[in-house]
Amino acid sequence: MSTYINSLNWRYATKKFDATKKVSNKDLDTILEAASLTPTSYGLQPFKIIVIENPEIREKLKPFAWGQSQITEASHLIAIVNFTTFGDELIDDYLANIGATRGIPTEGLKGYADFMKSKLTPLSDDQKAIWTAKQTYIALGNILSAAAELKIDTCPMEGFDANEFNNILGLTDKNLNTSVLISIGYRAEEDQTQHYKKVRKSKEKLIQYI
Amino acid sequence: MSTYINSLNWRYATKKFDATKKVSNKDLDTILEAASLTPTSYGLQPFKIIVIENPEIREKLKPFAWGQSQITEASHLIAIVNFTTFGDELIDDYLANIGATRGIPTEGLKGYADFMKSKLTPLSDDQKAIWTAKQTYIALGNILSAAAELKIDTCPMEGFDANEFNNILGLTDKNLNTSVLISIGYRAEEDQTQHYKKVRKSKEKLIQYI
Repeated sequence: MSTYINSLNWRYATKKFDATKKVSNKDLDTILEAASLTPTSYGLQPFKIIVIENPEIREKLKPFAWGQSQITEASHLIAIVNFTTFGDELIDDYLANIGATRGIPTEGLKGYADFMKSKLTPLSDDQKAIWTAKQTYIALGNILSAAAELKIDTCPMEGFDANEFNNILGLTDKNLNTSVLISIGYRAEEDQTQHYKKVRKSKEKLIQYI
Repeated sequence: MSTYINSLNWRYATKKFDATKKVSNKDLDTILEAASLTPTSYGLQPFKIIVIENPEIREKLKPFAWGQSQITEASHLIAIVNFTTFGDELIDDYLANIGATRGIPTEGLKGYADFMKSKLTPLSDDQKAIWTAKQTYIALGNILSAAAELKIDTCPMEGFDANEFNNILGLTDKNLNTSVLISIGYRAEEDQTQHYKKVRKSKEKLIQYI
């Protein structure tokens, strides 16, 4: 079996972390490198990744995530925050980055930029926020997979009050919204859920061949 | 460097596939196993995965994806289709699956099921469809990563007319919607984009530490 499948089978949504164990900077960097390499629509990466280690801030956040212990007891808490709106500058910045990375003049990319702008800029703010939020879920999965390859545990979380998180994290006036959370660290020995058999739909129910 | 990071660096959104090369059934099964193991909110997997090999159907789909050659020239086309609505049965089916998989009576899970229903069933159809679509993006990333580990190329695609795809794939009356597409196969030698340097935001722009 591929090591990737092994990792997916090894991981589970960790309910209880060992609060004494920290993820090393080296491993954290690898996980964030994976997040940074996440493929996104057009390559635009319309989100930010906030790594929260500060215990006081995590205590403040906890009640707005149903008091889940993972918020404070994991080694690190990662918030992926999506752009709630954007204008042409998102594409212009990307274009400048393509030019700088590949050492090419950006004039030749104007047609491509205009195409992206014609697709994205006219969207309503609601549509933009939905589209950027979807992209954060690719990064979410990537962080879970990269961590699992390093035998680092994770718990992805959607159950939190985004407005309160935005307030505490200072995102409210920056057109940023807390899309999804990931606690990372090491499972506590007493977390019984690590022994539960993984529940998945049968292939017959999930997959159709045409 | 971890093999996972190597795979993420190796992959790129393949523009031109080698139409003569097919992904083996064994590799396809591994990729679909990864898709099936995708973590989703509550574990509910509110989507289906359609594997389209049939050339006639792919020819029919192509004009509704801006005529992109990846639709017909890749080895397989995968559509991840999200549930546009759902009721309590999504949770009840899941509960039955937990019971069967873990060999436990489901009565003890009623509190958990009621909690999930209280969070999900009251959502509007629009909110449900957005939430289920987000889950498909975790599967999307997982398929891209699993393929890359096998040195199989992919092209994720959002650029298509979902209504027309739903029509052709017979999804319209089934509360299913084409959320995202992935072509899988092998890069054509002449695809120059494989040599382009990957463009990503600087870590300083993407990541914030608190």
